[in-house]
Parts: sequence; structure tokens; C-alpha cells
Amino acid sequence: MTEGKIEKVSIVVSKGSLEGIYPALIMANGARAEGIDANLFFTFFGLDAIHKARHEHIKLATVGNPGLHLATWAGGLPGVPSVMTHYMATKMEKLDIPPIPEFIEMISDTGAGLYACQASVDLFGLSKEDFIEQVDGIITVGEFYEIAAGGQIIYT
Amino acid sequence: MTEGKIEKVSIVVSKGSLEGIYPALIMANGARAEGIDANLFFTFFGLDAIHKARHEHIKLATVGNPGLHLATWAGGLPGVPSVMTHYMATKMEKLDIPPIPEFIEMISDTGAGLYACQASVDLFGLSKEDFIEQVDGIITVGEFYEIAAGGQIIYT
Amino acid sequence: MTEGKIEKVSIVVSKGSLEGIYPALIMANGARAEGIDANLFFTFFGLDAIHKARHEHIKLATVGNPGLHLATWAGGLPGVPSVMTHYMATKMEKLDIPPIPEFIEMISDTGAGLYACQASVDLFGLSKEDFIEQVDGIITVGEFYEIAAGGQIIYT
Repeated sequence: MTEGKIEKVSIVVSKGSLEGIYPALIMANGARAEGIDANLFFTFFGLDAIHKARHEHIKLATVGNPGLHLATWAGGLPGVPSVMTHYMATKMEKLDIPPIPEFIEMISDTGAGLYACQASVDLFGLSKEDFIEQVDGIITVGEFYEIAAGGQIIYT
Repeated sequence: MTEGKIEKVSIVVSKGSLEGIYPALIMANGARAEGIDANLFFTFFGLDAIHKARHEHIKLATVGNPGLHLATWAGGLPGVPSVMTHYMATKMEKLDIPPIPEFIEMISDTGAGLYACQASVDLFGLSKEDFIEQVDGIITVGEFYEIAAGGQIIYT
Repeated sequence: MTEGKIEKVSIVVSKGSLEGIYPALIMANGARAEGIDANLFFTFFGLDAIHKARHEHIKLATVGNPGLHLATWAGGLPGVPSVMTHYMATKMEKLDIPPIPEFIEMISDTGAGLYACQASVDLFGLSKEDFIEQVDGIITVGEFYEIAAGGQIIYT
């Protein structure tokens, strides 16, 4: 990192909810738009974002999220998470923010690195075949630190 | 960033719950107390912390938060989030930790920068008028990286 | 921080759930394995991880966590958090990832620093005696920044 400019960001995606994943993608995309190197490191439930069978079904957390201004009991009613997720997706579409699968593909196309966390992959019994083809590798925490050196680590 | 000392922290506030916002404010305030530059960047549900109509009504997440040691079903009962939030607020008052609106004003008065995330502002259909007057601007992710350069990014 | 390598990570543990604490521990342990200095700073509900009476009872958040692919109403049924937590613990054991208390002891033995956040300790009315003996001290945010200088801050 030089004094005047951030040269690289390495963003850890640890959550599997819509509102957990989008900020990470927006920060990675925003970095690439400024010519800043960007890496995304998917760990724990964040792995869903690059999981072939799951990445189209990411939902908003409608309970445990007072920011939604939904009564807690209402957020847990059957169907509510899907309705709220659909509502958010519609608003994003209007702003030209793509759905998660397309957004990740787009970010990969800008040259950003996409990595899955080895320990989490083992924990959930997954393998390379479960992930979208844009994933550059399954790496250890040690390898992540090597890749992240000289930049900012942003854990989301 | 010089070797010996952190010179700047840029703290992203992404959550809209009491326990999501306070740590960010405490870290910003603690930085200013040590003469460290501090910026707060409010994004996604974190925007509630600077929203005129909402910043006095921030609640604790009483479900999805095993740290509270409440049974999950109990955390969702009507009224429980308000009761727990009140309990926490009373404890904070005893420790001279101000409520969120006053705390943010105080941090702004120390010279910290307060910024709202452009993409999130668009997503929720908000504008500058919705925010408290201490907000220094609505900025893009790219502008955030410029402001954060030479310091630590802390995503909360 | 030199250009080529990360020399230190200071990891803030702010959550009291299994999936909130483990990634922090895995990142601290991974750092030490590479000869990188590591500090853990426990704040807010993260204090449970070093709390003598609580650190053996950390649970998975089964609501507000769409990554689990449980219906929200199901995640809140009595008993479900315990069952899911047990399931996760069994999978971790198979991967030789120790339970939280043993894992923290192990990380402390590698020479990592363990610190509790003063403001949070006061907020919850705790004292040094409530924590496991591996805790090196209760420190202020300002002291945290001093310890973290020259490295990466990772807020989890």
C-alpha cells in the first residue's frame, strides 16, 4: 500500500444472506471500477454465493434484522422472507444492480480473484465441482494472507 | 500508515441494530480520543443510524443472536425486542455512553467525517434531506476508498 | 506492514454465535501457523467466547441466518438451535477443529494476544475473574489501536 492510494482490497464474504453478500460485491465492484485490485474470499455461509445449486436462492434475513422495521414475529411468518427478498430484488433491478450470480460473474470478468475457504469447504463437505466456474481456487487462510498482502482486508 | 501508529480509521456501518451500530461508534470515538482521524461510512441498514426519522428507534436484535441467551422463540414474542432494547439503553446510560443520535453528533463534533453510501441511498429511495445535518456527503464506493487511503478500513 | 507480507493481524470478535466466533479463531490460528503475529480482541457479545461460564455453550444462530436453509419459523422452534449446534460441532470434530474453549487455549499457546474490550466489560458488568486465564488484559479501544498498529484490523 502506498501512502496516497489503496492498491488492493481482499474482501471476505462470511454471510449467506442477501444483505450480507451484496455489500461485499458492491465494494469489490467499486474497487475494480477505480483500478484497485480486488479479491473475494468466500467462507462459512458466504460459500452459498458461489455455490451452483444455491447462489440463485439467496434470501434476505427477515428476523434478527431490526433494520427492516418488521416486527420480529412477522419476519418469521412462512413466506415473509421470500416476499421481502423479492421486493429487494425488484428495487435492485431498477438500479441496475444485477442478481448475485450475474454480479459475481461480472466482477470475475473485471479480473477480480474469487476464492473459496478450504476449512469451510471441508466443513460443509463440498468440492470444487459444487462451485461456479469463475472460482479461481480453494485456498487456506495462510494463502489468503499471502494474496491479501500489501492491501486492505475487509471482512463482511 | 506509518510503522508506529495508526493514523486513520474508516469504519463502515452496515447493520441497523443496536449491537451492530454501537461498536462502530465506540471504535470511531476511541480513535478520535487518541488523535486518530476517523470516518464513518453508513451503508445498507446502517443508514438508519443517520436517518432523521429512524435513528432514535434503533433496536437490539433479539433473535438470531445467541449471545443474548434468550430462547429463540422468546426473542420473537411481541414486545420482547423493545424491552431488551430498553434494558440495554439503561445500562449504557449508567456508563455515560450516549444514545445513538447524541453519540453520532458528538463524534461528528470531534471532526470525524460522516458519509452515506450512494448505492444504498438509491436502493432505499432516500435523499440528503432524510439524513441528519452532520452527514458530510453521499459518496460512492470509489470515493470511500479515496478517503480511506493511508488508514485502516473496519467493516462492521 | 512491509510490502511483501502481512506481519500482524488484530481480529475483533464482536458476535456471540458459533458462526460468528469460529471464522475469527480460524483466521487467528491460520495467521500464527504462518508466523504472522495475531491478536484477538473480544467485544460486545463476542465476550462470551472467553467467558468461563459461557464459552462451552456457544450456539449457532438458527434464525436470521438464511445460509442455514431452514425455514425461519422452524429455526425458532424450541430445541432447534441446540440440535443444529450439535450437528455443526460433530462436523467440526471430524475435521479436527476443536471446540471453542480448546481452540482459544490453543491459539493463546501459539503466542497470540487475547484481550477483552473495556467498554463492553463495563456494559455487561463483568470483571477479569469472569474470563478464562488466557486473557492477557482488559483494554480500551485506544490501547487496541496501539496494539494493532503496523498490521491489519479484521472486524468479525
